[in-house]
Amino acid sequence: MKTYLDCYLCLLRQGLTAIRRAGLCENDQLTVINGVLQALQELQPGQTPPIIATQIHQVIQEKTGIPDPYLELKQQSTQKALALHPRLKKIIAAADDPFETAVRLAIAGNIIDFGPADQYDLWASVERVLAEPLAFNDLPKLRQALDLADEVLFLSDNAGETIFDRVLIEQIGKPVRYAVKSAPILNDATRADAIAAGVDQVAEIVEIGCNALGTLLDRCDERFVQLFHAASVIIAKGMGHYESLSGEGPRLFFLLQAKCKVVANDLGVPVKSLIVKQG
Amino acid sequence: MKTYLDCYLCLLRQGLTAIRRAGLCENDQLTVINGVLQALQELQPGQTPPIIATQIHQVIQEKTGIPDPYLELKQQSTQKALALHPRLKKIIAAADDPFETAVRLAIAGNIIDFGPADQYDLWASVERVLAEPLAFNDLPKLRQALDLADEVLFLSDNAGETIFDRVLIEQIGKPVRYAVKSAPILNDATRADAIAAGVDQVAEIVEIGCNALGTLLDRCDERFVQLFHAASVIIAKGMGHYESLSGEGPRLFFLLQAKCKVVANDLGVPVKSLIVKQG
Repeated sequence: MKTYLDCYLCLLRQGLTAIRRAGLCENDQLTVINGVLQALQELQPGQTPPIIATQIHQVIQEKTGIPDPYLELKQQSTQKALALHPRLKKIIAAADDPFETAVRLAIAGNIIDFGPADQYDLWASVERVLAEPLAFNDLPKLRQALDLADEVLFLSDNAGETIFDRVLIEQIGKPVRYAVKSAPILNDATRADAIAAGVDQVAEIVEIGCNALGTLLDRCDERFVQLFHAASVIIAKGMGHYESLSGEGPRLFFLLQAKCKVVANDLGVPVKSLIVKQG
Repeated sequence: MKTYLDCYLCLLRQGLTAIRRAGLCENDQLTVINGVLQALQELQPGQTPPIIATQIHQVIQEKTGIPDPYLELKQQSTQKALALHPRLKKIIAAADDPFETAVRLAIAGNIIDFGPADQYDLWASVERVLAEPLAFNDLPKLRQALDLADEVLFLSDNAGETIFDRVLIEQIGKPVRYAVKSAPILNDATRADAIAAGVDQVAEIVEIGCNALGTLLDRCDERFVQLFHAASVIIAKGMGHYESLSGEGPRLFFLLQAKCKVVANDLGVPVKSLIVKQG
């Protein structure tokens, strides 16, 4: 997805939120924000929003010397989601269609996202996503693709959301590689976050080789890029993956909540829509 | 008032709203927004938000070749406010303290502002401002200053708000010079807007010599700057005047609604607070 002018506003807002959360001094705040303004001016046609967002969060990490400013928030997200895990398992156990229910739960978990908003109501998200129709419903195609696949590449999004992903992975019934960031960025899941969620019990955790938001293939390491190109089915969670990989073809299935106006408009759906979309 | 980092966000949003309202093509939209980003980067310490906002709207005027993109909105605002004028007069006639009531109505009219928001509810603003306490109440000092003054300089804000100003001017009982922009900018009042509101019937309309938002003295013409420096009492309407003139001393009385978080924080009051504040 290209970077729309409305993304500029959101990226600047994300920058402001992040510098305050990181507790930067006024001078460093100004440096980071001027860096965002500069990066936006230098944006090349077709460049995607995660490129700028990555830059924002990396500069903040440098300036603060704190490699993981979202550590505590991520741990809280994981604990909150883990506390719901027994209820999620019961929902699956009672479901007429456990796979669809698991897909919906994975989308429900996508509400955990400190990019577009500062807070979320996790259980409200679960109830809503179980009840509402999907605005894009490529679930039959996803089911078919998974039936034919030997294994699945699963691109994770945020810490805590990982628990919901685990519930889905248990329903896939094929070997799954669960891709995480190699170092912290925003509240994206790292290996530690995935392990804290117990994903290592149901999938092989692989690192993408960088900590860019979404999946910016030109920054990932060779091993991951090979995995990416070899995969016959890729489940990609969250807006960042839609933004960075929406042109990567029909092997990809995007599972997300369209939490911002720009992504919703790009998809042609109302904000908050639930998406299962083949690339 | 200095430009806070939160102002960056608001200025960018204002730019986006304005380029869309003006119907600029995608290329010109990008040029204007890049201009905003550049201007924000080049902002000098102590420079006030109206400097950038002025630049945004002037560039849009240039790019579109439309000198007054807000003409229709201003005319609508004036008509809506004029329709309320008989009710405003009745409120004054029935008031225990007609001067305080007129000051409150002038503040109520300050809701007409296409900078911080896209729409407003004018009558709701009247009812609220008549009922709520003032967060800053320098009304006694304003009364005293007006008693001692031979004449008053009144810095107007927006078209439509002009009708509410007229009601206040009628209660001042001293000769009033009503300062307007010399050319259109945003929905700020020009001579034509003031005349459409009937302000010429109660005050001498003077132009400031430029179309910068707020009152940027270094851009006003010599005649106006002399008037400004000679005035013993200056009533300054709206956030733009507080932003551009808050350091100009006790001759100034700011009448406004603190519609944005930054101005409210700078004043140390909640958003939406009603302000009568001596400079």
